[in-house]
Amino acid sequence: MRIATLAIVGVGLIGGSIALATRRRSVADRIIGVDHNPKVIDLARRQGLLDQGSSDLVSAVAHADLVVVCTPVDCIAAQVVEAARHCRRGTLLTDVGSTKARIIAQIEPHLGPQTAFVGSHPLAGSEKQGPLHADADLFANRLVVVTPTPQTDNEALQRCTSFWQALGASVLQLPPHEHDNALALTSHLPHLVAAALAGILPRQWHELTATGFRDTTRLAASNPALWTSIFRMNSNAVLSALDLFIAQLNRFQTAIRSDDAGALLALIEQGKKVKDDLG
Amino acid sequence: MRIATLAIVGVGLIGGSIALATRRRSVADRIIGVDHNPKVIDLARRQGLLDQGSSDLVSAVAHADLVVVCTPVDCIAAQVVEAARHCRRGTLLTDVGSTKARIIAQIEPHLGPQTAFVGSHPLAGSEKQGPLHADADLFANRLVVVTPTPQTDNEALQRCTSFWQALGASVLQLPPHEHDNALALTSHLPHLVAAALAGILPRQWHELTATGFRDTTRLAASNPALWTSIFRMNSNAVLSALDLFIAQLNRFQTAIRSDDAGALLALIEQGKKVKDDLG
Repeated sequence: MRIATLAIVGVGLIGGSIALATRRRSVADRIIGVDHNPKVIDLARRQGLLDQGSSDLVSAVAHADLVVVCTPVDCIAAQVVEAARHCRRGTLLTDVGSTKARIIAQIEPHLGPQTAFVGSHPLAGSEKQGPLHADADLFANRLVVVTPTPQTDNEALQRCTSFWQALGASVLQLPPHEHDNALALTSHLPHLVAAALAGILPRQWHELTATGFRDTTRLAASNPALWTSIFRMNSNAVLSALDLFIAQLNRFQTAIRSDDAGALLALIEQGKKVKDDLG
Repeated sequence: MRIATLAIVGVGLIGGSIALATRRRSVADRIIGVDHNPKVIDLARRQGLLDQGSSDLVSAVAHADLVVVCTPVDCIAAQVVEAARHCRRGTLLTDVGSTKARIIAQIEPHLGPQTAFVGSHPLAGSEKQGPLHADADLFANRLVVVTPTPQTDNEALQRCTSFWQALGASVLQLPPHEHDNALALTSHLPHLVAAALAGILPRQWHELTATGFRDTTRLAASNPALWTSIFRMNSNAVLSALDLFIAQLNRFQTAIRSDDAGALLALIEQGKKVKDDLG
């Protein structure tokens, strides 16, 4: 996999890490970064992540062979559609959004025949933000889900897969809705749970927290605006995952209220079995 | 602080770490370990944690100046009472149980005037188990809560405090019920949440988990029998904490259902503020 010009739209933690990983692994000849915030572009350039930086999407994507949109989920669709209108014939566009079905539904009707889009979601990230935390190995040995639809061009799917593999990732194909249902439980719900748990801690008990509370709520440090958008973009699946979780909490309540040691042990063992299986 | 003979009842992760920390910091001349499992005693002796090991509580505590009971919360009270009957005059007894009020209520009526008991809870631990994971610095710069009651002898409280300080910990005094209410939220609820979240993950989505799911469910790897006992021994406070948590989840549900971006952002920011304050 070798790309002449890579354009990264949104040079935050993920966009910056794509730039760094691409550079370290010599995957692209030239990397152009686009960000509405000139300070971010400046920072990313000084870190050596970019060959060129811009706040203008249209000019930045004009000569790109691959465009990766790394902006918040509620911005992705409009930017992909806008970028696609100004790309050369044959340019591949992808994104890194944590939700897929609604984004793709907002993109596909507006794509002309000259460009191809494939949805991507690297299962990698951090509660940290910005290009300063860019990590060349963020995708190494991690999974990237790509979400083709009946409209997806097969060659584009192959190119997108090769790109992520070139950054060290494994690639899994899933239909967009299946991705969204799974990630609602494996990623969005943990973020919601962490935020809810951290949110109810009264000030006077802060000093009585230890590593258990800290780790269980690590994700509560994430960017609130980003996660507001993710929960909204995947609302039905998140609500279903939350229903499943509350039902399980209700089972714990019943077992504790009735002092049913056997039921309580079984519930805790159910979690431990999954945890042990995950390794 | 210098102890002639320290007896540790229950040589698991915590008991083993107390032995190791005591030895490294030269806090005791002699360390006797008691465990019902001869393999644990054998392992702890081979690791150099103990000067003497035994499965007999009565003989092991006969010459101890300090007895620390590190067994599961549903065993502590009976073992403290039994140990107290066979100690010399002036021996101090303490425990490391994660719940305090019920244990202390089961101990105090049975203590004679010749021995003193002070409840302790080091806010340190791990989902790992056994003396193989003993850590000499497990208590360094950590908090130990001691829970005096109106019956507690003041000199005993001072000795207990000095012991934990000698292992590197800070010590905070709290009434037993206040400890239990706080820890229900800061420790027991995170364990329950981790177990519930891990427990609902279907097999086919295991590969779609990443660091977020892993960290949020770290505590689900803990020993199920130990945590069954803890939830039962602190049932009222755990149920109250769970009610608070479910009410917060219901606020998330309402905000997502009504697509109320402002309410959702405020809920996530509430968690982030606490997380940022915790540092």
